Amino acid sequence: MLKIRPAAETDCDAIWNIFHAVVASGDTYAFDPHISREDALAYWIRSDTRTYVATKNGKIVGTYLLRPNQPALGSHVANAAFMVAPTPRRSGVGRAMSEHCLSEARRLAFRAIQFNFVVSTNESALRLWQQLGFDIVGTLPRAFRHPERGYVDVYIMFRSLEES
Amino acid sequence: MLKIRPAAETDCDAIWNIFHAVVASGDTYAFDPHISREDALAYWIRSDTRTYVATKNGKIVGTYLLRPNQPALGSHVANAAFMVAPTPRRSGVGRAMSEHCLSEARRLAFRAIQFNFVVSTNESALRLWQQLGFDIVGTLPRAFRHPERGYVDVYIMFRSLEES
Repeated sequence: MLKIRPAAETDCDAIWNIFHAVVASGDTYAFDPHISREDALAYWIRSDTRTYVATKNGKIVGTYLLRPNQPALGSHVANAAFMVAPTPRRSGVGRAMSEHCLSEARRLAFRAIQFNFVVSTNESALRLWQQLGFDIVGTLPRAFRHPERGYVDVYIMFRSLEES
Repeated sequence: MLKIRPAAETDCDAIWNIFHAVVASGDTYAFDPHISREDALAYWIRSDTRTYVATKNGKIVGTYLLRPNQPALGSHVANAAFMVAPTPRRSGVGRAMSEHCLSEARRLAFRAIQFNFVVSTNESALRLWQQLGFDIVGTLPRAFRHPERGYVDVYIMFRSLEES
C-alpha cells in the first residue's frame, strides 16, 4: 500500500539514496552524476520547498518536491520534480506522486505547474505527464548532454490548474 | 563612450541602485519589487556567475550576468540577465551589453543562451533579442503577474551559438 507524506528530517538518508541512484544514470536530470550528498539535499530540501516521500510497506520508494518556480510576481506557478527508487519503476509510484502533487498544488493555491527541464528521451515521464494534462509549451534545442545519445532536446511542460 | 567590464566588489552600490530601480516598477522581472539589497546582490553576484557592468563617462549605467542555466549535463547552455539604469534607456546600453554577452558566451564555450522568463509585454527587450538572433521557443501562459495588466504570458527565448 503506497502512502505519500511530507518528508521528515529522518528521511534524508533514504532521499539521498534515491537521488544518488537516479542521477547516477545521467539520463534524466542535469545534475552531475557525482553530485555530493550535501549539494543534493540542499537542492531537494529548501526553505521555499515542500518535500514529500512515498512509502510502500514503510520503505521510502520515491520523493518529490513542490515549490514556486519564480519569486514574487511569478510565484503563482509551481515547479515540481520527482524521483523514484530504481527497483519499483513502473510500479505506479511516479503516477501516484504526480497525482498527489497536482492535488497539493491546488490546495496551496498555485495556478499552474511548470517543469523546466524534461529530457526529450525520457519517454515514460513524458507519457505520464501528458496523460495528467501537461502540455509541451517549449523546446530547448540540444539543451541536455545525454551519456549515450549526445545532445538531445529538452521540453518545458506546463499544466494550468485554473478552472476553465 | 560606453565601456563594459567585469564587476568589482566596489560596484555593489551602483548595481543595487540599478537593480532596485528596475524591479521597483514590477513589470519586467518576477522579483519582489521590495526585495532587499542583500537578496538582490546574492542573486546577481554568485560563485557560478560572471557579473559585468557598463559604464559611461565612468558612471555605471547597466549591469548583466552570465552563468550556466543548468548544472553539469545542461551547463553548456548559458543564462543571462540584463538591467539598465532608468535614465539612459534607449541609449544603446541594453544592446551593447547584449552584444558583449554573446561574445563572452562564445569565448566561454557556451553552446547557446537561454532566457527563462521574458515577460511578453516587455516589447523593447523582445525586439532587441529577436534582432540579435534569439527565438521564442516557448510560451508560459499567464506566468507573470503584471502590476497593471494582470496575468500575462511569459516567453522562453533561445539562441544557439553553434556554427550551422
